[in-house]
Amino acid sequence: MEEIRVKAPATVANVVCGFDCLGFALNEPFDEMLVRKIDEPGVRIKHRDTFGLPEEPERNVAGLAALAILDAARADFGVEIEITKHIKPGSGIGSSSASACGAVVAINHLLGERFSKLELVGFAMEGEAFASGARHADNLAPCLFGGFTLVRTTDPLDIVELSFPKLWATVIHPQIEIRTSEARALLPQEVPLRAAIVQWANVGALVAGLAKADLGLIGRSLEDAIVEPVRKPLIPNFDEVKAACLDAGALGGGISGSGPSLFMLSASMETAVSVEKAMCTAFQKTGILFSTYVSEIAREGIRVAASRE
Amino acid sequence: MEEIRVKAPATVANVVCGFDCLGFALNEPFDEMLVRKIDEPGVRIKHRDTFGLPEEPERNVAGLAALAILDAARADFGVEIEITKHIKPGSGIGSSSASACGAVVAINHLLGERFSKLELVGFAMEGEAFASGARHADNLAPCLFGGFTLVRTTDPLDIVELSFPKLWATVIHPQIEIRTSEARALLPQEVPLRAAIVQWANVGALVAGLAKADLGLIGRSLEDAIVEPVRKPLIPNFDEVKAACLDAGALGGGISGSGPSLFMLSASMETAVSVEKAMCTAFQKTGILFSTYVSEIAREGIRVAASRE
Repeated sequence: MEEIRVKAPATVANVVCGFDCLGFALNEPFDEMLVRKIDEPGVRIKHRDTFGLPEEPERNVAGLAALAILDAARADFGVEIEITKHIKPGSGIGSSSASACGAVVAINHLLGERFSKLELVGFAMEGEAFASGARHADNLAPCLFGGFTLVRTTDPLDIVELSFPKLWATVIHPQIEIRTSEARALLPQEVPLRAAIVQWANVGALVAGLAKADLGLIGRSLEDAIVEPVRKPLIPNFDEVKAACLDAGALGGGISGSGPSLFMLSASMETAVSVEKAMCTAFQKTGILFSTYVSEIAREGIRVAASRE
Repeated sequence: MEEIRVKAPATVANVVCGFDCLGFALNEPFDEMLVRKIDEPGVRIKHRDTFGLPEEPERNVAGLAALAILDAARADFGVEIEITKHIKPGSGIGSSSASACGAVVAINHLLGERFSKLELVGFAMEGEAFASGARHADNLAPCLFGGFTLVRTTDPLDIVELSFPKLWATVIHPQIEIRTSEARALLPQEVPLRAAIVQWANVGALVAGLAKADLGLIGRSLEDAIVEPVRKPLIPNFDEVKAACLDAGALGGGISGSGPSLFMLSASMETAVSVEKAMCTAFQKTGILFSTYVSEIAREGIRVAASRE
């Protein structure tokens, strides 16, 4: 019997101006997954958490991703996947991506590392498509590659690993639900060319700022003139929370994924912790429960915790 | 009497996906300018070329830029500027920017380097605004800073010097006139959000590709789904010329500025020369006269050719 334990990290996608292309990995929170070879073909899912996610493989993100890779490999074995989720589903920090990526990385290990990371993203997209209704990879890419990534296209899949300096993220997850369909319905079909130019100049400047470790430039580029204005009403006290974080020294930030989480980037852990305090104070006024995380941007994605031959 | 001679290079703006923000400097063609201190205040322009540009300072790009910097410096002297243009006005490779930048760099030298490069771009914009009817800096920035630049915003002015590998540009200048107003009228007011996302993912990927010296990524990112489709009908045989260049090994390229010049980037001088041949063959079919240039992307912008105290 062979098995492998992996830790699948939370990720932030839609990084401000980089809507639908930029994302990064966190060190925590992360999901824990134990994947075990079994003789019968197919996939069995067991959830060791209390989120009540479906365990039928065809209705489970990890299950669908697992089926995709096993099928592509024409594997002569099946897998049992025990999942202990710590990343709350629907939090906007890549919960479904963590499940999908954890499954495919673990199974690829059991297959003797047959597939490239890029191929693994392709398999994980099968699970992600079920969860979000769209074939996107902006959480999958940082979850699998680690660090700060740019998805240039998903068809064909083209993922760019960006150079970036040490940066810390502070995340606040308000305990409210935002339906992806609702967040999507708010997106305009068309945008003014002027606004689009501002956005792509900021994306270019942000990538350059990350590569040059120019913190000032990173901060100035973290502006979103297109998506944030239409989506921020979904998050109570958004403007106040953001202003408090910038006052506390954050470089910038915005909505994580399609919310409800909000993230801020800082140049040091000390600042990220001050930002967390400012966030809490500003958000407490809403009376809504929330949790917060402080994490360095993780250079590594899925981590193998242990494996047994 | 003090005087200074400068060489002001041609530049390519609107670099494919980087419409209105990305530009780079060429080694040639360049304008030659001789700027001489005179006792009387104000600016005198003399053109040593045959383009018939106006010599009244208030109607001359170099004159307006010169007046702006002299005024800001409260200079107690005036200047006489002799201009020998080699960059044809209206060619789409930054002819007016070269005049404006050459004037301000030369005068700044006579002022003892009082102003920063960023401030000089601000003065040069006074001339550029007269020539193009808009305050933009996408040719000015590479002309002054050299290399590959990104203008994040013009208000406030925020210019990013990008890292980039050795690259060669091949430029073809068809002898046709495209009025800036005509090229501008073709721009859509609104663009589909989907297309804008493709564009900003490409801008981010291009900046990353330049920083990583990843030639494959640079080539894949040189796609423009927004402006090229609407403007390319202004340039005869555009699609055939572009296809021939890609066949000859170019990484990619597109319309330079608002045309009529077209440029292609290559990873070596040998390829850039092959691209030039392919360009000529494909364009000759139009029966329109043209000239071509092959130049490495210049790390230096305005060059001081000689100065005399």
